[in-house]
Amino acid sequence: MDIKTAISKLNEADDKLHAIEHALALIQWDAATGAPKNSVEGRAKTLSILTGEYYKTLVNDELNELLSLLEDNKNELEYVTLRKAEEFRNEYDKIAKIPVEIVTEYTEVQAKASAAWEDAKIKSDFSIFAPHLEKVIEFSKKFIEYRGYTKHPYNTLLDDYEKGLTTDDLDEFFSELKNSIVPLVARIKESKVTINDDFIKKTYPTKEQEALNKKLLKSLGFNMDSGMMAESQHPFTTNFNRNDVRITTHYFENNLLPALFSTLHEGGHAIYEQNIGEELNFTSLGTGTSMGIHESQSRFFENIVGRSHSYIEYLYPIIKEAFPEHFKDVTSEDLYEAANKSELSLVRTDADELTYSLHIMIRYEIEKLLFENKILVSDLPEIWNKKYEEYMGLTPQNDAEGILQDVHWSEGLFGYFPSYALGNAYASQFANKMKETIDFEKDLKQGNLENIREWLKENVHKYGKLLTPSEIIEKATGEPLNAKYFIDYLEDKYSKIYDL
Amino acid sequence: MDIKTAISKLNEADDKLHAIEHALALIQWDAATGAPKNSVEGRAKTLSILTGEYYKTLVNDELNELLSLLEDNKNELEYVTLRKAEEFRNEYDKIAKIPVEIVTEYTEVQAKASAAWEDAKIKSDFSIFAPHLEKVIEFSKKFIEYRGYTKHPYNTLLDDYEKGLTTDDLDEFFSELKNSIVPLVARIKESKVTINDDFIKKTYPTKEQEALNKKLLKSLGFNMDSGMMAESQHPFTTNFNRNDVRITTHYFENNLLPALFSTLHEGGHAIYEQNIGEELNFTSLGTGTSMGIHESQSRFFENIVGRSHSYIEYLYPIIKEAFPEHFKDVTSEDLYEAANKSELSLVRTDADELTYSLHIMIRYEIEKLLFENKILVSDLPEIWNKKYEEYMGLTPQNDAEGILQDVHWSEGLFGYFPSYALGNAYASQFANKMKETIDFEKDLKQGNLENIREWLKENVHKYGKLLTPSEIIEKATGEPLNAKYFIDYLEDKYSKIYDL
Repeated sequence: MDIKTAISKLNEADDKLHAIEHALALIQWDAATGAPKNSVEGRAKTLSILTGEYYKTLVNDELNELLSLLEDNKNELEYVTLRKAEEFRNEYDKIAKIPVEIVTEYTEVQAKASAAWEDAKIKSDFSIFAPHLEKVIEFSKKFIEYRGYTKHPYNTLLDDYEKGLTTDDLDEFFSELKNSIVPLVARIKESKVTINDDFIKKTYPTKEQEALNKKLLKSLGFNMDSGMMAESQHPFTTNFNRNDVRITTHYFENNLLPALFSTLHEGGHAIYEQNIGEELNFTSLGTGTSMGIHESQSRFFENIVGRSHSYIEYLYPIIKEAFPEHFKDVTSEDLYEAANKSELSLVRTDADELTYSLHIMIRYEIEKLLFENKILVSDLPEIWNKKYEEYMGLTPQNDAEGILQDVHWSEGLFGYFPSYALGNAYASQFANKMKETIDFEKDLKQGNLENIREWLKENVHKYGKLLTPSEIIEKATGEPLNAKYFIDYLEDKYSKIYDL
Repeated sequence: MDIKTAISKLNEADDKLHAIEHALALIQWDAATGAPKNSVEGRAKTLSILTGEYYKTLVNDELNELLSLLEDNKNELEYVTLRKAEEFRNEYDKIAKIPVEIVTEYTEVQAKASAAWEDAKIKSDFSIFAPHLEKVIEFSKKFIEYRGYTKHPYNTLLDDYEKGLTTDDLDEFFSELKNSIVPLVARIKESKVTINDDFIKKTYPTKEQEALNKKLLKSLGFNMDSGMMAESQHPFTTNFNRNDVRITTHYFENNLLPALFSTLHEGGHAIYEQNIGEELNFTSLGTGTSMGIHESQSRFFENIVGRSHSYIEYLYPIIKEAFPEHFKDVTSEDLYEAANKSELSLVRTDADELTYSLHIMIRYEIEKLLFENKILVSDLPEIWNKKYEEYMGLTPQNDAEGILQDVHWSEGLFGYFPSYALGNAYASQFANKMKETIDFEKDLKQGNLENIREWLKENVHKYGKLLTPSEIIEKATGEPLNAKYFIDYLEDKYSKIYDL
């Protein structure tokens, strides 16, 4: 095979994978937003067959050979092709190194683990889930063995979600966070300031919330011709290509804020995808570069924009117009405080901007111990509860609100949680940098996000997967990931709110 | 290869084709019911790649060989496998006999013809479309040459939509229809009876129509757990499998009836699909057997049930409850007459139950002439207009309401129109037979369709593609297709309405 043929075959495989991904993602979208109850079985069959096709397209001798050929001739490749070949090799190795019978066996183990977790959570009984979790972890360890690792076995897993990230990076990162967040939280606990957020817990009809959220999404800069918003049980973003990016939200009639901030959050993910460089569209490079960078965009719009004093000044009259009765006696300041109320809690998904990282830290520490073989699955509830006591001063009353709360482990997603915390830190670092050239507060007060979006597009979005996460953060801000900006941001914000 | 392996490979191919069809149909459903404006390009790419995969799975040497092996060992196969192999051979031959470069060339010709037809229709200028139509017909003729034909070249096309149907059958069928419908229409024209349907043309808000239509669909026996209803520009039904069958309707705020009868029509298609035998589900045999039989089910629910005097007695209070103001001075009899008003018209899609077949007859006669090489594309407008003058006494004022009105020819769909007329005739023949064992009018008056659905399920639906159309009609009614039942039905119905 000559290089030209190899490139053309690579692009052909890429097109096919992209088409299958499009179909898979649409089937999932449909399932979450409206498919009829009895569609489950047919969907499972189709997903399984198309996923099989996906793997056959990715893992085969011809592809392996052409990748080797391209790797041997790196100097002759355009940058886009080079990156594409790297991505393919990465995905190829992740799968091809593991014997197919192990993968098949694991698929069944994982499916059973999912069912067991659901059952265990309903019954709040970890012992139902424990034997399945043991197996899932055992397989994850096997996978690491087959794939190999550098320095720490957990690094292989981290790398799947955040290319290049290691336990050394995270140990340092979380230790900095811990040293600042834990005392900050303690000071807030002592603060005399009390925040009244009763007004956001009145009855807010879904229909009016929907109108407000659509308005908000549009004003964020989400392109309504290249995407849409629907409702689902759990909010998420899905992207078929930069011209078709979809988000969902979930409305709670007894609380105005969850849908509002989830729209800002998913809107951030979506704007990232809509602004990927056009030349990368419909290719494997035409999507966000990593979980962490993606999360930085969602958290940026949710927290750094959405929960800022300035932007809430802009939002306040819009919300008041939508709900004049509810907001009759509420000021913009009241809304700002309600949106930023900080409380220690047991459940990650209920956590506020400040305490969220503590939940992640606990999961990181536990996962690392698991993959260092230092703890057993049977130890988990006790370790979990001890860490919540240590960092939060709270003890779960049962397994459901403790060790069983997250779905991730039942799906074999180890190494995934840290990206949530990285997202916050990246977002603060981006914000700090863009403030050098953008009149940030003024723009937020006017609800004018154009300069901000433009900055993100030029420094983050347009690259898609052309750059790795660390390349993006360094190119955009002139330095590697630095927790300092996030810490400063939290210190500054919460000191003011809680009068510390 | 041994037989067992061949069967297992056939089933594997069938599974894969089914999965791809599921994905393709969902993408089309999504496009029609909500996809964002800019999603067009990505959808086209994915559809094209997945369609390519579909053909690769169907047309390859291994499949050809295993089909031959199964054909050589017919006696050893179970009936389901035998039918499946026949279906595969049918589809295989349809494609494999035509050289791939001809198919590729045609794809482009057809795409251009579609665009030209749209443009021509807007400008009401047949000359824009004519050269493209010529090419499409030329290719259709080439396809017939490659595929071969029995007795008449047009038979090969008819066979695609209604297995076994020939021009001999249709000549007889349409001549009987013509002999009865043309004089019946003439008598109605002379009738003193005038029907006032102003009340259905008041303003009916979409939201209330939607609630009414959902209620109606449910009362038809559509399983809401195994399907759903959405809104689209043109109503259609799509089925991924028997547990996921979806219909759309289109609401007109200035007319109550179009959505109502399109819900009954699509509901009929959907109930057919939902009641296919469970053992055929997720296979190529698990869907309606032909266009004509499918259309018989939709027309059955739309016309024989929906436009009957008895069912309208049942419907009337339900509609009146939904629109009490509109129906204040309207009786059930008024509604019945408005739903059955017969008028000669130039546009097929506006036609009533009686005159509809005349539109189809004209198209059939013209298509036959084309494939007998007896007329040229340049003759079409004149021939079209002459036939409309002859059968309807009406002459199109321009190409848009004449020769350009239907999309079918631009898509190369020749031989398709007759199935619409067959559907009416099959439906009447089924109805005549079921009345022997079901108290038909009583059930309709009570809106109780259970016995009727059960009859259709046992005699039509459950077989899926296990039986051919002619096998179904003969098994169910004891005789082949017979236009008499449809003619009697029309004579009886319209004589009463128009006091002939």
